[in-house]
Amino acid sequence: MIGIIITGEGKAFSTGADLKWLSDFGKSYGEALHELSARYHQAILEIRRMPKPVVAAINGIAAGGGFSMALACDFRVMEASSVLQQAYTTNGLSIDGGGTFTLPRLVGLARAMEIAAFDRPISSKQALSWGLATEVVEDGQAVKRAIELIKEMKRIPLSSFAACKKLITDSFNTSFETQLQKERETLSWCADHPNGQEGIKAFLEKRKPVYT
Amino acid sequence: MIGIIITGEGKAFSTGADLKWLSDFGKSYGEALHELSARYHQAILEIRRMPKPVVAAINGIAAGGGFSMALACDFRVMEASSVLQQAYTTNGLSIDGGGTFTLPRLVGLARAMEIAAFDRPISSKQALSWGLATEVVEDGQAVKRAIELIKEMKRIPLSSFAACKKLITDSFNTSFETQLQKERETLSWCADHPNGQEGIKAFLEKRKPVYT
Amino acid sequence: MIGIIITGEGKAFSTGADLKWLSDFGKSYGEALHELSARYHQAILEIRRMPKPVVAAINGIAAGGGFSMALACDFRVMEASSVLQQAYTTNGLSIDGGGTFTLPRLVGLARAMEIAAFDRPISSKQALSWGLATEVVEDGQAVKRAIELIKEMKRIPLSSFAACKKLITDSFNTSFETQLQKERETLSWCADHPNGQEGIKAFLEKRKPVYT
Repeated sequence: MIGIIITGEGKAFSTGADLKWLSDFGKSYGEALHELSARYHQAILEIRRMPKPVVAAINGIAAGGGFSMALACDFRVMEASSVLQQAYTTNGLSIDGGGTFTLPRLVGLARAMEIAAFDRPISSKQALSWGLATEVVEDGQAVKRAIELIKEMKRIPLSSFAACKKLITDSFNTSFETQLQKERETLSWCADHPNGQEGIKAFLEKRKPVYT
Repeated sequence: MIGIIITGEGKAFSTGADLKWLSDFGKSYGEALHELSARYHQAILEIRRMPKPVVAAINGIAAGGGFSMALACDFRVMEASSVLQQAYTTNGLSIDGGGTFTLPRLVGLARAMEIAAFDRPISSKQALSWGLATEVVEDGQAVKRAIELIKEMKRIPLSSFAACKKLITDSFNTSFETQLQKERETLSWCADHPNGQEGIKAFLEKRKPVYT
Repeated sequence: MIGIIITGEGKAFSTGADLKWLSDFGKSYGEALHELSARYHQAILEIRRMPKPVVAAINGIAAGGGFSMALACDFRVMEASSVLQQAYTTNGLSIDGGGTFTLPRLVGLARAMEIAAFDRPISSKQALSWGLATEVVEDGQAVKRAIELIKEMKRIPLSSFAACKKLITDSFNTSFETQLQKERETLSWCADHPNGQEGIKAFLEKRKPVYT
């Protein structure tokens, strides 16, 4: 299994956009952010649509665009002293970077509204209890643990991961009957993929599968 | 920040529709409720679509239409002895007032089915652990705490609150790519709003923003 | 209240499809599963769309198709030593049987991704804390408890149950305004149903309703 780990250099995971850049852009703040979010959203899209696991190794504060980027990842390993904060609304903006897509899907409607309206810093402990963090580790250990998680995923082939990631990402906004039919097409695709062939053969031969 | 607080006069928050009214309406129960729910749903719509925070200060039982009204609010402060009960299904009806929209989004599919099928009274403690209550306070303190919450929201401008409320309310039934694009348009709108201008300027000038 | 209980004969609840059957089918694995899932999905559809409560009495391992079947039910009573495991992805396949519809709606987006990517066995205790199990009982007691749950549902009529099941199942992928209107039509239908008539009359006469 090949995976991506996103982490921060230095003390922060990411504190989001450089607001100073906005002043120097030479157009209105709205036009500047319209331009900036087009590029930023492309990155968010690549993370959520990437047919590979993406793990955020949160080594410090994840705020603003960094908050939404962490939520767009498949898994979040937070270091004990790291903190999440959406930070958009206290600065007079609205949550973007897919945060309004991921937040309600991760913590439900009421908690998402609470995070939007109060913008309180969210400790790693709080994040774990709300399901925003997959795991919490000691400071300095996030990348190491993220690598371990990706290694653990070797037990499943990339084709299966990619198929489920797409189905699960699109689940809430899809009707039951349509989702069943998508599952059926996807299952056949997986079964005819070399990894599917290997998985089924290994099962029948009572041995461990070897995925490429 | 301007906000709305909904609470009950006397001992109950709201026990919903006056079923006696149904008998006196002069048409079938179905026709009477079709008429009644048109008006009631308009109130529910105003709560969920209002570009301002709406806090339910639940000072006693919230049942039937009162249950759904509480769930339609952005936040719920429950007094320790207050109780939630959907009360529709035990009376031979189906949940309305947006309860089937909000319940699964607040507590998930299985818990929502459980609440529909068993209609057990839900204590404030249970409501807090399920995420139905934002906070639980001592009896007699719900309105006071609701006011404090609205005051705390002064840290964010109404434009940011309204923008996020709309995005989050419509999130589950919207696809990832569409939600990203809505976020982009909304972010630009917020940034060009006087409150957005103030938020960004205050950030750049390293001072606290003052929102109107 | 009439209800359905699904349980396993012997030590397992269900371990899903017979992969050996795939080898003997005479076509590619993909074609074989396309054929098999058409029939299996019909069963899943009947469970989730059945206008009656369906309770999974999980008496042992529920894996693969058995895992998804358990999740498609309205409620899950797990025996203490029983275990859930999706088991599709470790065998090179993708989750089907509605599992990618139900999982995110039961446990949220991140937990669903975790279950898909790591495929760790889920103990009854873990299932309860994640909300995958409605209740956990001692070994050998799942069917007994499932019967009790269905008896408890006698307090609500089948018409109300069926109406709410449909509304709640279709909730996440439906917009707020559309859901309100569906609730309004459904409420009228319930109120004009003999059980609705009885429920309202019993309320007005201050007696317990008797539903048929």
